[in-house]
Amino acid sequence: MKRAVVLLSGGLDSATTLALARSQGHACHALSVHYGQRHAAELDAARAVATQLGAVEHRVVTLDMGQFGGSALTDPRIAVPEAAVEGVPVTYVPARNTVMLALALGWAEVLEAGALFIGVNAVDYSGYPDCRPEFISAFQRLADVATRRALEGRRLRIEAPLMHMSKAQIIRLGTELGVDYALTVSCYQADAQGRACGRCDACRFRRQGFLDAGLPDVTRYMVGISN
Amino acid sequence: MKRAVVLLSGGLDSATTLALARSQGHACHALSVHYGQRHAAELDAARAVATQLGAVEHRVVTLDMGQFGGSALTDPRIAVPEAAVEGVPVTYVPARNTVMLALALGWAEVLEAGALFIGVNAVDYSGYPDCRPEFISAFQRLADVATRRALEGRRLRIEAPLMHMSKAQIIRLGTELGVDYALTVSCYQADAQGRACGRCDACRFRRQGFLDAGLPDVTRYMVGISN
Repeated sequence: MKRAVVLLSGGLDSATTLALARSQGHACHALSVHYGQRHAAELDAARAVATQLGAVEHRVVTLDMGQFGGSALTDPRIAVPEAAVEGVPVTYVPARNTVMLALALGWAEVLEAGALFIGVNAVDYSGYPDCRPEFISAFQRLADVATRRALEGRRLRIEAPLMHMSKAQIIRLGTELGVDYALTVSCYQADAQGRACGRCDACRFRRQGFLDAGLPDVTRYMVGISN
Repeated sequence: MKRAVVLLSGGLDSATTLALARSQGHACHALSVHYGQRHAAELDAARAVATQLGAVEHRVVTLDMGQFGGSALTDPRIAVPEAAVEGVPVTYVPARNTVMLALALGWAEVLEAGALFIGVNAVDYSGYPDCRPEFISAFQRLADVATRRALEGRRLRIEAPLMHMSKAQIIRLGTELGVDYALTVSCYQADAQGRACGRCDACRFRRQGFLDAGLPDVTRYMVGISN
């Protein structure tokens, strides 16, 4: 069985990506990165999703990117916006996907994995620079020269299968593949139990996605927000 | 004063790089990464070097890459070779420089730094894939699309000024710039006091460098090894 590393945040997109990688016959090694995000309930969700979707194993790397500041996701003094904004929102975490892909690249090399999956999406998204196709292409070119395996001519494919899908398409795909979205947490400011605020970017894209897909929104919201 | 992030391992090359960045007028923010290396005395050295060379500040990010295994530098069960080997030696840490550059990229963005310095060298080196010019070029292209600042047209230059220098040239340069090499630790298996084994790749390149430069080797060696 061919091995793959799958970046798993515990959100809707990465859960769907894991299900897709599995359906393509990969033995999936799931990796979560605890980078100091305030929405740590994501990590509990990631554990549950890894189990539900049959990952071979699930690892967590903890690192303190929060010390650098500069993001609402790692600095509790910066508020998470609850309406759409112009440009890249303050929930952007500088170089987050570069760091997560770098860690996954290292693990993939040790595992001799042939593919590295990441659930980035550039349709219904917050406009983050490191979710775009040109970013993934550049990381592929980096991976092609960065490792010993690359020197030996063995390529690690960087797979971003959700890149051009709408949120509704992602939800339909995941539903077909058996993802239990009730386990996933997308909210940027979920509470400790993983309940969503219903108002941040991530919540709005997700709610609209269920609506557009014509599927019930199984998200657990905080008190006072109805599905 | 223009800001730069400088990756600082505590070894000879990164100390020289920091001194060079300072001499070029940068306010230097030094970053060390504790990735689970067995030679943790490097981090004490990094602290001392950052102070000696006038870094504005020195940060350490700790992360457990050792859990992935696959390297003699993070797995005490794999012996550090004490003679030259064919190909990439087992001291190679999968994706290490990719991870360290990624973390530095994130911090550089928050600091609005214009340059990121790394002391990689592809002359007197262990043949690691992520020390080569093509790796640095690929990372530059990644940085050019990865961040919000890049989207706004503000470029972060990835500087690897030692890339094509011999170890002797590096030592002469650093000596001119006032680096106190007695503070630095290069050895892959230094003891807790930072004393060097004198036999690993890193030690051999370093000893030969001082010899070729015609300068006294100020390295502190373990008992039984003479300078």
